[in-house]
Amino acid sequence: MVDNDRDDNRDKGRDEYAVGVDFGTLSARALVVRLRDGAEAGTATCDYPHGVIDRVLPGRAGTARELPPDWALQDPDDWTYALGQAVRGALRDAAVDPDHVIGIATDFTASTCMPVTASGVPLCQLPDLAQRPHAYPKLWKHHAAQRHADRINDLARDRGEPWLRRYGGKISAEWQFAKALQVLDEDPELYRRADRWIEAADWIVWQLCGHETRNACTAGYKGIYQDGKYPSAKFLALLDPEFQDFAIDKLRHPVSPLGTLAGPLTAAAAALTGLPEGIAVAIGNVDAHVTMPAAGEIAAGKMVAIMGTSTCHVLNGEDARDVPGMCGVVDGGIVSGMWGYEAGQSAVGDIFAWFTKLLPGTSHDQLTAAAAALAPGEHGLVALDWLGGNRSVLVDAGLSGVIAGLTLTTRPEEIYRALLEATAFGTRMIIDTLRGSGVPVTEFVAAGGLIKNELLMQITADVLRYPVHVIGSAQAPALGSAIHAAVAAGRYPDVPAAAAAMGRLRPRPYLPDPARAAVYDELYAEYRQLHDFFGRTDAGLLHRLRSVRDRHYSSHNEHGISG
Amino acid sequence: MVDNDRDDNRDKGRDEYAVGVDFGTLSARALVVRLRDGAEAGTATCDYPHGVIDRVLPGRAGTARELPPDWALQDPDDWTYALGQAVRGALRDAAVDPDHVIGIATDFTASTCMPVTASGVPLCQLPDLAQRPHAYPKLWKHHAAQRHADRINDLARDRGEPWLRRYGGKISAEWQFAKALQVLDEDPELYRRADRWIEAADWIVWQLCGHETRNACTAGYKGIYQDGKYPSAKFLALLDPEFQDFAIDKLRHPVSPLGTLAGPLTAAAAALTGLPEGIAVAIGNVDAHVTMPAAGEIAAGKMVAIMGTSTCHVLNGEDARDVPGMCGVVDGGIVSGMWGYEAGQSAVGDIFAWFTKLLPGTSHDQLTAAAAALAPGEHGLVALDWLGGNRSVLVDAGLSGVIAGLTLTTRPEEIYRALLEATAFGTRMIIDTLRGSGVPVTEFVAAGGLIKNELLMQITADVLRYPVHVIGSAQAPALGSAIHAAVAAGRYPDVPAAAAAMGRLRPRPYLPDPARAAVYDELYAEYRQLHDFFGRTDAGLLHRLRSVRDRHYSSHNEHGISG
Repeated sequence: MVDNDRDDNRDKGRDEYAVGVDFGTLSARALVVRLRDGAEAGTATCDYPHGVIDRVLPGRAGTARELPPDWALQDPDDWTYALGQAVRGALRDAAVDPDHVIGIATDFTASTCMPVTASGVPLCQLPDLAQRPHAYPKLWKHHAAQRHADRINDLARDRGEPWLRRYGGKISAEWQFAKALQVLDEDPELYRRADRWIEAADWIVWQLCGHETRNACTAGYKGIYQDGKYPSAKFLALLDPEFQDFAIDKLRHPVSPLGTLAGPLTAAAAALTGLPEGIAVAIGNVDAHVTMPAAGEIAAGKMVAIMGTSTCHVLNGEDARDVPGMCGVVDGGIVSGMWGYEAGQSAVGDIFAWFTKLLPGTSHDQLTAAAAALAPGEHGLVALDWLGGNRSVLVDAGLSGVIAGLTLTTRPEEIYRALLEATAFGTRMIIDTLRGSGVPVTEFVAAGGLIKNELLMQITADVLRYPVHVIGSAQAPALGSAIHAAVAAGRYPDVPAAAAAMGRLRPRPYLPDPARAAVYDELYAEYRQLHDFFGRTDAGLLHRLRSVRDRHYSSHNEHGISG
Repeated sequence: MVDNDRDDNRDKGRDEYAVGVDFGTLSARALVVRLRDGAEAGTATCDYPHGVIDRVLPGRAGTARELPPDWALQDPDDWTYALGQAVRGALRDAAVDPDHVIGIATDFTASTCMPVTASGVPLCQLPDLAQRPHAYPKLWKHHAAQRHADRINDLARDRGEPWLRRYGGKISAEWQFAKALQVLDEDPELYRRADRWIEAADWIVWQLCGHETRNACTAGYKGIYQDGKYPSAKFLALLDPEFQDFAIDKLRHPVSPLGTLAGPLTAAAAALTGLPEGIAVAIGNVDAHVTMPAAGEIAAGKMVAIMGTSTCHVLNGEDARDVPGMCGVVDGGIVSGMWGYEAGQSAVGDIFAWFTKLLPGTSHDQLTAAAAALAPGEHGLVALDWLGGNRSVLVDAGLSGVIAGLTLTTRPEEIYRALLEATAFGTRMIIDTLRGSGVPVTEFVAAGGLIKNELLMQITADVLRYPVHVIGSAQAPALGSAIHAAVAAGRYPDVPAAAAAMGRLRPRPYLPDPARAAVYDELYAEYRQLHDFFGRTDAGLLHRLRSVRDRHYSSHNEHGISG
């Protein structure tokens, strides 16, 4: 990755740089960024040697599957290895003198969380625990704690816990409490050995600065930390007497605002990364939320949608509103001093990939070209974008996809276009819900892998009736992290100031076309009808179909730890 | 087509035969059948030289399209040509002495209707009218008279015409009155030149016996002939003053029971077909309804489903019941002395063909093999089989298909199986509606091209919880016609007696499996939910989608007479 200023050697001598590292699901990417303008000097990526661990634990390759379905673990050694490799590679690619780097910041998938000792050693690195599945970090997409999440939600609803409405009325099986409760349930001895339960986002910072920190983003969005506290010991005790002290014992720690200094880089971390000892290490962050400052000026009402296999919407508001179906509403969860709203669509790019795979020998490019030739409305179709469930605003993973309006002349590109449109309708539903709850949405920025899909960008603009701005960096999360590093190093007064200087949008947005938007208003009205019928009036229908499937699927496809 | 008795020369000398001729959409098929047992001695097919005329009139090939969309005509010369060729070919194939043939009967697509002179000459055969589109027979699938059908239905509803409920509350644009009203509207001079307006089913009999007849089946199902009369002159006058005498002038004629004698074969028809002059010619019939006696014993409650691109259900009942959404309820419409009930599904095989075409490089066989490996319910899908609209029991051509329950792991064969199941659910809805209205359905027989689809047959049995019997002839309509010829010739006292001797089922039915049927009961409950939501509670939704499509489709795909 080389920017226009790569060969600007005249300036290089006196420029300062920050390093941002984005820890994804399969790899870590480091980006060296010039402080004064956010120019990207160099980048490098390093895959995790073990990737996603969903069949056998490390060191046991070739043996029969030992992890049940829906498990997804990672190996912390992979992260430190990739950290060193990626940062060193990015420095080489940038040809920047490491002494000109003044800080480093990281962002991580979340909730990816794990049990560690008081000194931060992952339990899976203790020799006597290396063969215990629950000793490993549970990756965000570990989905085996659903019944634990259900227990938490049921109890919270029964007791009217005030924090529940901050999470759309439901906490996720992906989050800290559900995953920790699963460990207590299934391996209580290991649970007892854990001094701390920590997000990977905070653990990686521990590796860089040598001591524990907790960031406001994961604490708020993944750790149910609201209004200065975690769920009460009384509440937790009702889930399991032994869970009573979970928050007090294993989570409690001062929560640091985003963009603040975690500490100086340790000698060990300097040796690992090739960066100078003592430079600033920023508090941790999450890959989606950290993208906001990479889009430049920060203002309440500016929504950034990170559109990929799924889509995450982040937005700042001046105050806390109860908005149905948000993933989370967190004070300082995205930028310190504002309320961060997070919403999501469980599957977006995944839906297009599913349909493309359904049609053998067909490519996204072919389908996109044919779909682009259609006029809005001409297919007469409307679909519900719930093939991966509905995250916002229904918060219902048990829903599934629907396509209506099929005729004997319906062609593949028509269905493909209807699926693109459905994801845009899903986004409009989220925006309408926010606005309907008094949270302004004044601007829309697209980020993530799907920004390369021009047809989707235009459809989104036409459906939303907003200009769709596109983020100006292909490595937006790593750029966002570098921006946080610049602030932690004191080179900018705060994240908004750094974002204004270092973040950016592409010059030209996709503009809504009034004629197309009018057709989409009609189709969106039908989408809402379907949304409310299948999601509210008779949400049982899709749940029952799933239940029929689950009962009959398992009858001749045996699942199990040895499956 | 050769049956087991083909070489039974010992008997051939003293056996008698009947000829049945089935006039389909693209060809006529003749079958020579042994009277005593229905053994099929020989068969031949002849294509219509002009097939379906939907672009230019005969003799004008190569010129620009002159027929508007939705038009479908035929050339009567094609029918007489194919009649001669097919009968002569079948006699040769059978190696039967024509003198041993004692009668001929025909069945036809319907409503295929046309204007003729008092002597039965089609107007399109008059030199000065040969270039007038409305002079030609309108094939059943001529769909350009929808607004005329709408006018008829609106008026009939407003006036509470008693015959309307015999047709599910709606007459079809395919039928005699709508098509004739279109002629009056669009070419009134030609309308005035027509002495008679006649079904092809009756016109072909006119060619065989030399005089006009009208059969109870087309008069009842396609001509709104109920309780001994057509719609009143007063009613017709309100549609158009000139339409007042349509029934009196152009339709009225004694209506003959099915299986009765139309007259002896004329010398001209004998010369055309190679059959002996003077043999019995039976009253006309319709290809679907004539299939009933080919299934053997006739009894009230025995449903015969002719399953092909679409499905037609015919059933006899002891008396007339008002059943919502029937295509027609006609006294003697299928078998004289019983009330004939007809229902239908607009698209069945067409749906499977659509889905197979959607997936490039995939065949029915591949999809069927993969779908057959699935357990019922394991896909978690339910579909509405309305891709061609809904004929029964909603009588709503403006509906369209829906698939619910899609997930990111849904595979092509799962959707394919869900579509097969949807057509079986549609049949179950028809049977439930009949039974709910007091019309017993005690037995189910499958006929038509789809009987070769074993998976569909088994699914139908499991969904319906009836044994699915399969008709014993691959040429069931022609066999049904031959049975009527045998009765017209006096060799059997009535159609049931002839059917018992000459019709047949395969020895082994597909039996419902109780475990699979239990799963289908669950899925059928969801189908009903969807059926009632999209078909009744909010039927507007799919109509609005179609309207959006029609408005935006035409905006960049110009239709027109020169298109």
